[in-house]
Amino acid sequence: MAAPGQNLAVVVHRAGDLRLENRPIPEPGPDEVLLRMHSVGICGSDVHYWQHGRIGDFVVKDPMVLGHEASGTVVKVGSGVTHLKPGDRVAIEPGVPREMDEFCRTGRYNLSPTIFFCATPPDNGNLCRYYKHSASYCYKLPDNVTFEEGALIEPLSVGIHACKRAGVTLGSKVFVSGSDLSASRLQKAKEVGADFTIQVKNETPQEVASKVESLLGCMPEITVECTGVQACIQAGIYATRSGGTLVLVGLGPEMVTVPIVNAAVREVDIRGIFRYCNTWPVAIALLASKRVNVKPLVTHRFPLEKALEAFETTKRGEGVKVMLKCDPTDHNP
Amino acid sequence: MAAPGQNLAVVVHRAGDLRLENRPIPEPGPDEVLLRMHSVGICGSDVHYWQHGRIGDFVVKDPMVLGHEASGTVVKVGSGVTHLKPGDRVAIEPGVPREMDEFCRTGRYNLSPTIFFCATPPDNGNLCRYYKHSASYCYKLPDNVTFEEGALIEPLSVGIHACKRAGVTLGSKVFVSGSDLSASRLQKAKEVGADFTIQVKNETPQEVASKVESLLGCMPEITVECTGVQACIQAGIYATRSGGTLVLVGLGPEMVTVPIVNAAVREVDIRGIFRYCNTWPVAIALLASKRVNVKPLVTHRFPLEKALEAFETTKRGEGVKVMLKCDPTDHNP
Amino acid sequence: MAAPGQNLAVVVHRAGDLRLENRPIPEPGPDEVLLRMHSVGICGSDVHYWQHGRIGDFVVKDPMVLGHEASGTVVKVGSGVTHLKPGDRVAIEPGVPREMDEFCRTGRYNLSPTIFFCATPPDNGNLCRYYKHSASYCYKLPDNVTFEEGALIEPLSVGIHACKRAGVTLGSKVFVSGSDLSASRLQKAKEVGADFTIQVKNETPQEVASKVESLLGCMPEITVECTGVQACIQAGIYATRSGGTLVLVGLGPEMVTVPIVNAAVREVDIRGIFRYCNTWPVAIALLASKRVNVKPLVTHRFPLEKALEAFETTKRGEGVKVMLKCDPTDHNP
Amino acid sequence: MAAPGQNLAVVVHRAGDLRLENRPIPEPGPDEVLLRMHSVGICGSDVHYWQHGRIGDFVVKDPMVLGHEASGTVVKVGSGVTHLKPGDRVAIEPGVPREMDEFCRTGRYNLSPTIFFCATPPDNGNLCRYYKHSASYCYKLPDNVTFEEGALIEPLSVGIHACKRAGVTLGSKVFVSGSDLSASRLQKAKEVGADFTIQVKNETPQEVASKVESLLGCMPEITVECTGVQACIQAGIYATRSGGTLVLVGLGPEMVTVPIVNAAVREVDIRGIFRYCNTWPVAIALLASKRVNVKPLVTHRFPLEKALEAFETTKRGEGVKVMLKCDPTDHNP
Repeated sequence: MAAPGQNLAVVVHRAGDLRLENRPIPEPGPDEVLLRMHSVGICGSDVHYWQHGRIGDFVVKDPMVLGHEASGTVVKVGSGVTHLKPGDRVAIEPGVPREMDEFCRTGRYNLSPTIFFCATPPDNGNLCRYYKHSASYCYKLPDNVTFEEGALIEPLSVGIHACKRAGVTLGSKVFVSGSDLSASRLQKAKEVGADFTIQVKNETPQEVASKVESLLGCMPEITVECTGVQACIQAGIYATRSGGTLVLVGLGPEMVTVPIVNAAVREVDIRGIFRYCNTWPVAIALLASKRVNVKPLVTHRFPLEKALEAFETTKRGEGVKVMLKCDPTDHNP
Repeated sequence: MAAPGQNLAVVVHRAGDLRLENRPIPEPGPDEVLLRMHSVGICGSDVHYWQHGRIGDFVVKDPMVLGHEASGTVVKVGSGVTHLKPGDRVAIEPGVPREMDEFCRTGRYNLSPTIFFCATPPDNGNLCRYYKHSASYCYKLPDNVTFEEGALIEPLSVGIHACKRAGVTLGSKVFVSGSDLSASRLQKAKEVGADFTIQVKNETPQEVASKVESLLGCMPEITVECTGVQACIQAGIYATRSGGTLVLVGLGPEMVTVPIVNAAVREVDIRGIFRYCNTWPVAIALLASKRVNVKPLVTHRFPLEKALEAFETTKRGEGVKVMLKCDPTDHNP
Repeated sequence: MAAPGQNLAVVVHRAGDLRLENRPIPEPGPDEVLLRMHSVGICGSDVHYWQHGRIGDFVVKDPMVLGHEASGTVVKVGSGVTHLKPGDRVAIEPGVPREMDEFCRTGRYNLSPTIFFCATPPDNGNLCRYYKHSASYCYKLPDNVTFEEGALIEPLSVGIHACKRAGVTLGSKVFVSGSDLSASRLQKAKEVGADFTIQVKNETPQEVASKVESLLGCMPEITVECTGVQACIQAGIYATRSGGTLVLVGLGPEMVTVPIVNAAVREVDIRGIFRYCNTWPVAIALLASKRVNVKPLVTHRFPLEKALEAFETTKRGEGVKVMLKCDPTDHNP
Repeated sequence: MAAPGQNLAVVVHRAGDLRLENRPIPEPGPDEVLLRMHSVGICGSDVHYWQHGRIGDFVVKDPMVLGHEASGTVVKVGSGVTHLKPGDRVAIEPGVPREMDEFCRTGRYNLSPTIFFCATPPDNGNLCRYYKHSASYCYKLPDNVTFEEGALIEPLSVGIHACKRAGVTLGSKVFVSGSDLSASRLQKAKEVGADFTIQVKNETPQEVASKVESLLGCMPEITVECTGVQACIQAGIYATRSGGTLVLVGLGPEMVTVPIVNAAVREVDIRGIFRYCNTWPVAIALLASKRVNVKPLVTHRFPLEKALEAFETTKRGEGVKVMLKCDPTDHNP
């Protein structure tokens, strides 16, 4: 194990000020584990905190370690930890509720207003060499799931939570709205499982809805809207079958004008999502059984020492997912 | 039974042209029953068809009998009817699906686009002396439920369906938005079961939400919005607890601007309703067990012969519910 | 089209008396279609009616055409049919509700006591050349789904309905109990998607449960019990994770002794299934998207003229699914 | 506040050995509150531990304070407690999860195998003068809810949880099985809300089911079985409408013989309950709004000093609920 102080971390100090610096290696509490980080993906929100120093009401006031799409290896366990031991490979769920409030008690802990969340101010993330976390929110990876797949469980969880909120099930017909302006991203969508794609140009929302129906042969029961753009939300309402569900994943402007009567009288539900809850076990099952393949999404890799270069790459919008390799002894996926 | 042609009916011919006229007494088909109508309430939509000749895309092109809040007595049954017999007192569900499409097959027949619905053009209603209806959509009334209660099951059904869509259950805290400008209507709301009321003047949507929270001691899990007004829909979103549901009952302008990010990140679901389905048995159980009291809502009664006067009364906004008494031999509730 | 009377059909007259005989070609009613049958699978219940003349309270009193796993081509449509036309290839859902009772109205039409069901006395099945059926219960097959796949939707529907009743969703861990005595059937299970298999010999129910947990690495949330055998139902309760669901698909003796306290205090729900409802659209989506492969299940094919031989083959328990080819001009899958 | 050691408590040492003894007043941890107990009901399980020293696998090995139906007043709060303050009147939920396992994370914390639970060995209960508890599981009582009502939330929670698991909602028809041998208890059932009662003598399970159907005019969608007796469970299956739910609340012998095919083919779900979760807020809302009246259930009251007499009274089966008054300065309800 590294000497105290040898914990290289990617830290945002304020808008535009991103640094690589050494921090102390933390000591796990009774219900925590200390992890040697392996792979951490860069999320758009990491770049946003770097560029703008804030996201909405969450403001970087003190230096904050970035990173929340992560996996690593247990190196030390607290006295109360029974389900993990040193050497275990784990994926990290970044949100850990701080109190058993009504949301936690009913299984919707993502809505708990006092939740700890990696790399959301003022809580530090895990883009570093060593990181401690609540043991209950570290999930053991099967041998046939890589560290990078483990790190990708975080973005995958957004999709899983959206599907759960939408009620996606056997045979559901789903319209995913997003990426539709870019031919190359549509191609990537096909590679990872889309049955059909539509490239949208300057159609009205109603025209988009018609095209979706024509292509599918019926209206989809579910629309997953990933852009937050007003016209796309409108298209999502028009496109969804009566009695179906529109899930809002993308976030755009706070106030949006929507065809509310169309949605209401056709009983099309509008449901947002906030992060996720209870998705890690689902994601691990999907990855272990090879029902889902996220590997093609990793297009770039950088060692932790080159984190600033990695952030610049992400900022330029190159590729899909940039992965930072935090373990100097193992840069494998 | 009256002679053929002795079937007095309230018929709208076009906007502004409402007539009392005699029509033939219909003959029930194999799965139908003929009813001697007893009590029929006047709905806002009846008045609207009379005043405007249309509601949205539904246009009165041919003369149409009004009325869809109704109860009566079976006088004749079709050859295939087994669960009803002459003399049975029944409440009438006005929507009868015409085909077993996907919506019917999944128990959401209210969404079936080809459904028959009383007094929605071109389908005739039941504001008349004699009316035939699908036997499956006539529900026997227990002895302790009056004809007028039976007729009021239709508007009650809107509330029941809204509650079902919202998931109202034991101990739910519910904010009902509507009527809040009128002190007398707030008083009536208290009489029929509201625990608290707020009279709104010129508060912002956020201020309304704060007042609701203060009054209840917590944010309500459910908001039932009954006005369709943009500011009220906005207040409904702000007022609803994270993870809760806003049900849209009132319909206003087609396009409405809403704080969609606020709703989405707090996972406040927005769900509309279209009429109702599977509510008559629920309503009868509620009325028979005296858990719900709708009787105070009937404020005016007119014999069928005075239907035009009754419509004028309703149009002036007097009272709450105007009831037409269609059976000349029995004007009891 | 064949001349009247040229409708070869497989008819059971009484226990042990199975005949190939000509029947009239039926005329479709207004909401019906006439079908030229293509592929019809033989079900265990068909063999049971042939061998025993009854299943429980359903007794063959008059000659009855067998067959309910079927697909064919529309040759004539009734006057009220709009979604199908001659030439359409369709799969047939054998259960058609006769009245809009409470079960139909709530989307659970499989529970309607007066439902028509192919080859359940006294209702005729479709193991014949020409058959008429309710158009609403005939589902158009996409070009990339074969007639035999269409016929196999019926047994597939049992699985889909069981999964829906169990709440199988993304990442569910499911223990399917059945076939576990036969190595060859376990091998077939692996071919069509099982991740692991266990061959059971003389273990106690608790020992089976332990083996399942060891193999999966955790207790399954869901058990689908397909045998109806008492020891297997007991094992299903012990094996299912607290808060999970045991679905009973297999039917055995009426009275069964179960560890009810174990199930109750761990909140393991016990849910049976009766046939299925609303599964054809799901099945078609699964087959068209190639998420499910049922083709390997067809192990034998016979022309309709050799139906008696086909029934003897099925009775001997050879292979998995025996398919009868009813169209003399097309014996393709 | 009392001096250290002045904490009179009702302690079971082993089967048959129940003592009143002084224990130290505990010190609340950071997330705990110290309570001055007011009213604690005696439960059948308290008597059982006294009489038998065990319930199933839960064995009294060390002296254990009894009591888990309780309410009191906050006298001290831990450093991390924000929602309670000294002087607050609270009801106590006796089950407090010890770790965020999969059951807690999904809102079913009652199933957590490591949960703390008052007066279940080895965890002490709250039949004493002073007691500390997790602040998150103490619920503030409104002014219009008495301490005794607060204590009765615990048994009421069993009913609420059963109703939630059964899906009881507006207009549900429910058959509650239990107490049906005693005319006086049936009378009490009517007082607190039953619409009809049946006194059962030596009817078969099928006969009981028929009687229920006759009385209700239809089969109930839901049966809540509160005895655990085999014949009653059987009657519960036969009595429940197809597609409905039988909830098992009463616990009897581990192995029970049930008509499993009858339940399965009618899709009657069998669901047990284990204690409850998320019921205190519901119960408080029901009590505060006066929708539920539990006050008539308290038939006996004893001061804490006379606890042994109170236990003898409960053991003899007198009355319904015996309440112990733990606050020497306030014996009000």
